[in-house]
Amino acid sequence: MRKILLIWPFLQVSWQKIGGMCMSDKLIKNAGGRWVPETINGEKVFPFMGVGRYKPSGNKMAPKISSCADFSSDGNKQVSDLKEALQKAGLKDGMTISTHHHFRNGDLVANRVFDVAKQMGAKNLRWFPSASFPCHAHLIPYLEDGTISHIEGSMNGPLGKFCSEGKMSKIAVLRSHGGRYQAVQDGDVKIDIAVIAASCADAFGNANGISGESNSGLLGFALADSQYADKVIVVTDTLVPFPCVPWQIQGNYVDYTVLVDKVGIPEKIVSGTTQVTKSPDRLLIAEMTAKFCEVTGIIHDGFSFQAGAGGTSLSIGIFFGDIIRRKGIKARFARGGSNQYLVNLLEEGLVEYILDGQTFDLEGVRSMRENPNHVWTSPFTSYNYHGKGNFAGMVDVVILGATEVDVNFNANVVTHSDGYLMHGIGGWQNCLFSKTVILPLPLFRDRIPVVVDEVTTLCGPGELIDVIVTERGIAINPLKTDLIEKAKGSGLPIKTIHQLKEEAEHICGKPERPAPKDKIVAAIKWVDGTVIDVVRQVADE
Amino acid sequence: MRKILLIWPFLQVSWQKIGGMCMSDKLIKNAGGRWVPETINGEKVFPFMGVGRYKPSGNKMAPKISSCADFSSDGNKQVSDLKEALQKAGLKDGMTISTHHHFRNGDLVANRVFDVAKQMGAKNLRWFPSASFPCHAHLIPYLEDGTISHIEGSMNGPLGKFCSEGKMSKIAVLRSHGGRYQAVQDGDVKIDIAVIAASCADAFGNANGISGESNSGLLGFALADSQYADKVIVVTDTLVPFPCVPWQIQGNYVDYTVLVDKVGIPEKIVSGTTQVTKSPDRLLIAEMTAKFCEVTGIIHDGFSFQAGAGGTSLSIGIFFGDIIRRKGIKARFARGGSNQYLVNLLEEGLVEYILDGQTFDLEGVRSMRENPNHVWTSPFTSYNYHGKGNFAGMVDVVILGATEVDVNFNANVVTHSDGYLMHGIGGWQNCLFSKTVILPLPLFRDRIPVVVDEVTTLCGPGELIDVIVTERGIAINPLKTDLIEKAKGSGLPIKTIHQLKEEAEHICGKPERPAPKDKIVAAIKWVDGTVIDVVRQVADE
Repeated sequence: MRKILLIWPFLQVSWQKIGGMCMSDKLIKNAGGRWVPETINGEKVFPFMGVGRYKPSGNKMAPKISSCADFSSDGNKQVSDLKEALQKAGLKDGMTISTHHHFRNGDLVANRVFDVAKQMGAKNLRWFPSASFPCHAHLIPYLEDGTISHIEGSMNGPLGKFCSEGKMSKIAVLRSHGGRYQAVQDGDVKIDIAVIAASCADAFGNANGISGESNSGLLGFALADSQYADKVIVVTDTLVPFPCVPWQIQGNYVDYTVLVDKVGIPEKIVSGTTQVTKSPDRLLIAEMTAKFCEVTGIIHDGFSFQAGAGGTSLSIGIFFGDIIRRKGIKARFARGGSNQYLVNLLEEGLVEYILDGQTFDLEGVRSMRENPNHVWTSPFTSYNYHGKGNFAGMVDVVILGATEVDVNFNANVVTHSDGYLMHGIGGWQNCLFSKTVILPLPLFRDRIPVVVDEVTTLCGPGELIDVIVTERGIAINPLKTDLIEKAKGSGLPIKTIHQLKEEAEHICGKPERPAPKDKIVAAIKWVDGTVIDVVRQVADE
Repeated sequence: MRKILLIWPFLQVSWQKIGGMCMSDKLIKNAGGRWVPETINGEKVFPFMGVGRYKPSGNKMAPKISSCADFSSDGNKQVSDLKEALQKAGLKDGMTISTHHHFRNGDLVANRVFDVAKQMGAKNLRWFPSASFPCHAHLIPYLEDGTISHIEGSMNGPLGKFCSEGKMSKIAVLRSHGGRYQAVQDGDVKIDIAVIAASCADAFGNANGISGESNSGLLGFALADSQYADKVIVVTDTLVPFPCVPWQIQGNYVDYTVLVDKVGIPEKIVSGTTQVTKSPDRLLIAEMTAKFCEVTGIIHDGFSFQAGAGGTSLSIGIFFGDIIRRKGIKARFARGGSNQYLVNLLEEGLVEYILDGQTFDLEGVRSMRENPNHVWTSPFTSYNYHGKGNFAGMVDVVILGATEVDVNFNANVVTHSDGYLMHGIGGWQNCLFSKTVILPLPLFRDRIPVVVDEVTTLCGPGELIDVIVTERGIAINPLKTDLIEKAKGSGLPIKTIHQLKEEAEHICGKPERPAPKDKIVAAIKWVDGTVIDVVRQVADE
């Protein structure tokens, strides 16, 4: 990436033709070498300028000043139903409506919000979820009939496919969890109405996800929404007398509270990505990753790690536990969505604290309720790049996934090699600022190489990615001379990234590059709000 | 007060002469009937317009956007000492420096800050503490030599006397705890540098007052400072590895951390006002207050109360405990500074939660550390009038003190009848929004009546004050017909406020009114930022 940084700003050329195709919008080659538009949905954006190069100016978003004189002095903000809440919140065409994704595929509230908005005849709404899941395919008819204009938020599954096929009337914008906080904090996205589903609340609006029945664990992804949205609605299925404690969402930010039958299906916060892998290849990758961390001294007394929710990552956590136990040391903290495996490490005393960002299973919820060594974090504390530091940089090693990685260590997490947008960014980009970033990946998937010449979509600059672990060898970023030195003599199969690519191509053949259409269907933001890449409509079969 | 509300806005007359005295500044008669200036220290202010009448417009203060690129990615913000921190924070003449008062009379940091500022040659600083205590008399030389221009914050003791005597070069501004949050949030006061003393912190700036040695309990009074100050310095005497949990102050708001020998003397958070009364008269008042709350049904299953830290208030809490125990009920919550008496009620199970605003003794600190039913609040959650509601209104009964109350139930908490400014407002004004407000007061102090024709300084409008309990009778505000009805037949000595005043005058004689000089030495803000009254320089003896 450094060479790209050098070319910028000399290459800030605007083009109207790319690859011989006429573009209606002016495009700029960003510091990642990607052609990106100057405006998205009519709003000016900045191109990615390199890691740490974009200097934000100006001030944070300043919400309107409220007055207690406009609220019932007894603190009761309950209205009869979601429709009344949306009416009182002044729902109208073109507004931005936000929801959180802590219920993951068990969310019952986002769909209901747009059912009501459709009944009310609202049009052209921007949906700004912290992420979407397959359950939200329910909203496709609203995208088709103009109730919803477009989505700004990570898209998993059907909505990603819908977007990839060019069916969304505006350009989707994908941000990392930290990037979403940044966008709201900086006023890049103004939320008109935030709807926050909570398993427990009081009529004042204090709310959490660990009391009541429909638990989602944390509610941190709704923090920015509560702080900065013009109107905030808390929807719950368990109302308790004031005070609802703990208050993960503070009622002082809330305008209306609504009691409904059920806000979410807690069992569904476990998604397919939160099961330990059983694949022998993936287990090998996990074991090699853990061994790499041991031999290089990354695992040491008081170290910290984040190991995601993918099947391989969960296995790595288990191997980490074995090493910690054997060495008689302790990890100071683990970051991540809490799950049973992480909870085991905490309860065994191998990890002092879990810094929770979200919750991936019901063991995580239980432990969070009972164990004070769960520390609740939010995208503000952990990931916001436009803050006075964040927690991501303090993690010794982070284990992440990717759909593709290229020979410059650039990585992709949102599209597959066929060009389809199928995943969200999550906290992935934010975690790249950790001290060591390791991507344990299979060398190919369905006979399509994962290590490629150039990633389909650039999500993370190679300069921030340190190690690629595959079942056929480990590649260390040449920038990381310290790690290269430490891994010498370890017996681990250290190779160059080019060697890995060639091995993959030897087995699978050189992969065909997708030939997308011209139309930009989604923009990928970097953690600082600049545009790092775009996704184009997939070509017809 | 209602009649005053009716005259406003017809009486928005500007005068340059009052009582025959030429005033340099234009004065306006506010809705409390007090003459207040249009500007304070050169900044425009609004006169008090009546409870709930002032409608704020505009947006909250918007702090500058920061970037992680400007901070060390490993989260280490430690600098060598306070001087380096103040230099890096850009200390210069005329700046506003804030500190918190959780250490009360045991604070060691505020004085040190200005020692260093003096060394650095800074001039004309505005000190913006959440309150000052006698220990801060150390700063008087800096007020005299121009290092500090003036104080905006509650003043107790020597600084109040200094101010009353007209020795401060600018007008002091006194705000309630909630009013201080409001002022910062709304941008009425822009803090340049906030210095936050904490008993424990990590190098990133996460901090609390319950770990380490020099405990102050909570740090909630520094919340606004951390959120809105341009530069934030955390000073601690116990640095722990990241993460310092719990984080009452979030490191993501912090610019610099400083390790010093000692930040405060925890034993001194117990001040003279946090001892149970031994006076038979005060005990009688306490008992009558509790009985009043019992017979009127204010004490009921699930009720809530706040009973301050004064000697009489603490006794009332004990009587409340007796009644709760006898009736076999529970209080849902008690609000207040935690102290041993409140902790006893919590541990006995008579109170479900303590909603802590500050901490008044070391038993409070211990319990807060051990008992999850302590809920940490802040001036934002509890008192900020420019929020979407606050907690004060949800408290069934609040027990408050006063230096004077008049026949219209208006009350004074900041000056004595001799005109001397000797106390801060604390949360007093904010608590007036609770469902029932009771002022248990001795009918006279040092043979000076407490019930008077007109209070020396108007701090709280009579329409918000419901009951005055004295050792010689109880007066209920005529507006509170429900309470008057419920107290009938109780056997309690219910009298009119006029009867109480006459009894006091019969015993003590008609009190002499102070004849202050013209010079305004302090302005008293109402919870919404308007000016409810001023304090004038005391006359020479």
